[in-house]
Amino acid sequence: MRAVDIIQKKKEGKSHTKEEINFLIQGLMDGTIEDYQMAAWLMAVCFNDLNEDETAYLTEAFINSGEILDFSDISNIVADKHSTGGVGDKVTIVLIPILAALNVPCAKLSGRGLGFTGGTVDKLESIPNFNCELKDFNFKEQIKKIGAAISAQTPNLTPADGKIYALRDVTATVDNKALICASVVSKKIASGANIIVLDVKYGCGAFIKTKEEAKELADLMIRTGARLNRKISAIISSMEQPLGTHIGNSLEIIESIEFLKGNYNKDLYEVTVQIASKILILSEIAKDFNEAKVLIDEAIKSKKALNKLKQIIEAQGGTPECTDNYNLFNVGKNKIEIKAQNDGYVSKLDALAIAKACKLLGAGRDKKSDSIDPGAGCVLKKKTGDKVQKGETILTLYFNDVKPEKLEEAKISAQNAFEYSDTKPKAEELIYA
Amino acid sequence: MRAVDIIQKKKEGKSHTKEEINFLIQGLMDGTIEDYQMAAWLMAVCFNDLNEDETAYLTEAFINSGEILDFSDISNIVADKHSTGGVGDKVTIVLIPILAALNVPCAKLSGRGLGFTGGTVDKLESIPNFNCELKDFNFKEQIKKIGAAISAQTPNLTPADGKIYALRDVTATVDNKALICASVVSKKIASGANIIVLDVKYGCGAFIKTKEEAKELADLMIRTGARLNRKISAIISSMEQPLGTHIGNSLEIIESIEFLKGNYNKDLYEVTVQIASKILILSEIAKDFNEAKVLIDEAIKSKKALNKLKQIIEAQGGTPECTDNYNLFNVGKNKIEIKAQNDGYVSKLDALAIAKACKLLGAGRDKKSDSIDPGAGCVLKKKTGDKVQKGETILTLYFNDVKPEKLEEAKISAQNAFEYSDTKPKAEELIYA
Repeated sequence: MRAVDIIQKKKEGKSHTKEEINFLIQGLMDGTIEDYQMAAWLMAVCFNDLNEDETAYLTEAFINSGEILDFSDISNIVADKHSTGGVGDKVTIVLIPILAALNVPCAKLSGRGLGFTGGTVDKLESIPNFNCELKDFNFKEQIKKIGAAISAQTPNLTPADGKIYALRDVTATVDNKALICASVVSKKIASGANIIVLDVKYGCGAFIKTKEEAKELADLMIRTGARLNRKISAIISSMEQPLGTHIGNSLEIIESIEFLKGNYNKDLYEVTVQIASKILILSEIAKDFNEAKVLIDEAIKSKKALNKLKQIIEAQGGTPECTDNYNLFNVGKNKIEIKAQNDGYVSKLDALAIAKACKLLGAGRDKKSDSIDPGAGCVLKKKTGDKVQKGETILTLYFNDVKPEKLEEAKISAQNAFEYSDTKPKAEELIYA
Repeated sequence: MRAVDIIQKKKEGKSHTKEEINFLIQGLMDGTIEDYQMAAWLMAVCFNDLNEDETAYLTEAFINSGEILDFSDISNIVADKHSTGGVGDKVTIVLIPILAALNVPCAKLSGRGLGFTGGTVDKLESIPNFNCELKDFNFKEQIKKIGAAISAQTPNLTPADGKIYALRDVTATVDNKALICASVVSKKIASGANIIVLDVKYGCGAFIKTKEEAKELADLMIRTGARLNRKISAIISSMEQPLGTHIGNSLEIIESIEFLKGNYNKDLYEVTVQIASKILILSEIAKDFNEAKVLIDEAIKSKKALNKLKQIIEAQGGTPECTDNYNLFNVGKNKIEIKAQNDGYVSKLDALAIAKACKLLGAGRDKKSDSIDPGAGCVLKKKTGDKVQKGETILTLYFNDVKPEKLEEAKISAQNAFEYSDTKPKAEELIYA
């Protein structure tokens, strides 16, 4: 078997055998297949896709490329959640402390920067001294001790996916459903969770552009999970505009802390409650959505969830005082306010344009070796449906050292993200299914 | 501009601007764009193609990535020839000495192994001590002195094409017409030739499968040459069965030496004469094909062409005695004879299956860093249209150290390359246009 023949086969639209998929993934791991060969194959997959068999083979190959965690000795309930990613999506950061505060053990593995802004791990690493590179043993110990741990994909769990995830990010091969499915499902299975809820996002700020495609991806992941003997459930939510108000690594952590203090944006709250309630029901902690919502609200109001976040931060080497003193964060030392160009209502707030602006300020990365500026990002003062007056601040950009031409481009992108109308636009549904 | 956006654009089937193509090629050269990004873009190009503008931009970017040679101070005629590659294609190795013997200066740049067997440079490097890595100055000096030089693509001529050529080979992105065109035309222009004849091959042993596609490629190259102010002419020839009788690096050099001693296979002779005559006519050395043919035959018969080959070998550090003593070559120390399975005529001899067999024996490479075994290959005892008896040797495999399973696969591939019929098959045309 030769890598070039396997690439050629996919280029011609043929299906791979299990052996071919294994050859490719093992080769990537042992260095006999080069990154550039994998990149060419990934692009061929974007054009000719993988069928359900191939997707399951790839998922399994990812799982088998590393260790598989097992928490059965801690609890028969271990929850995990995954979002397909969107702009301003900090649900994980508020959800885990809420669930842990309600006695649902959470084993959360998260990734680094896919796309324009950082991933959950990049966001968490903006917490002073926070360490996401736990060893397995600590990961398990921490879940046992405080009920939750959040780790970057460690080298010994689905390392093949780790390599491919980084490659896809910089080769425009992110948006293929089979590749997304294999990446997500393999990580969830290898991380040992038995209650898995997926948040599949669609819209201009997500990799998936339409509801229908999001539904297809959710179904594919649920079926792939079933083939590999895991129960997965999913919500499908809109990512037309950014989720919440803060975008950028440090800024999203600050918004998350404020959320747990009870100061939340309603959209972020709605998505969080939908996911948390599904997990609470599957865990048999709540009977129905209403009962779950009461528990969630109580965990926030009582500050139990906030305290759980502090515990997690402390357990992972971070500085829990940051929850009370935001000066401990690297937030861009420079600010520029973007003003409304019209009177009226915000009729559209393009999540992708906002993400591009943040990326230009340094919030995301181009290549896997690039570093991210945790201080870069923006805070939205207005969202879709909000009334504005011409000249009013609609958004504030935060940045450190940015080249003038990039800054100029970011300002234009942020400005153009907003569209206006004279009448209040119809509210879009946030949760589709 | 970001590489990932350019890749995405091509993935979506959009056209690139000249600036985008330049950004990509300059980035590849200065290391800001990674091989894996280039590989992903190349695969996207295979699916969505480049238009004529983009092809010309890419060709120009390749040319401008390095030096451009200029021979106007030596001669107003400098010829070059290029074949799109095929199995057993050693035309360059016989053509250059013939032309140089007839006082046509030849500046020949050749490549390393695209596909299953070595490229012309790999073949030449099987000549003991032969050096294809000439510096510009030597290249020019040698042409001045003995009328011909054959060089590997040097780092200072179209280095961007050099990088991409090596990548395409191992990422199944060889067979795109625009990429082939940019590679070939840029090399020819940068190498300073003003008489350029292309041999565009089609058939199961070529990258181009049909006559029609070969015609398209030839036209694209002629038009791209015209956009960049060069006159290019082309022949289109069949590569259904291997050209000549020997396949593999050392073996093809031995066949070439025999050719110049007057012991030639008729197909190899026909293609060589077609190309050589075109060049002799364009150079105004011969009035027409018949006059050219007389000159060519005389150059062979008089041994002037053979002596020119010896001069070239000597000038480039090689051991000219190898032309009289084939023991100086590394030819596989092991031989296996493949026998006919039927009585009758050879109705088909699949060039690709033969190439695969040679590749399995070590004659080609999978990755740009792989080495080639010059001794691996085969000699055809029968070709399409030849009468055979069951049990008669149709082909001999040559090899050094090969794993038993690879050897077994090579034997099967060589055996299956032959098909038989009871009646003599109609002769196929070798030269189409």
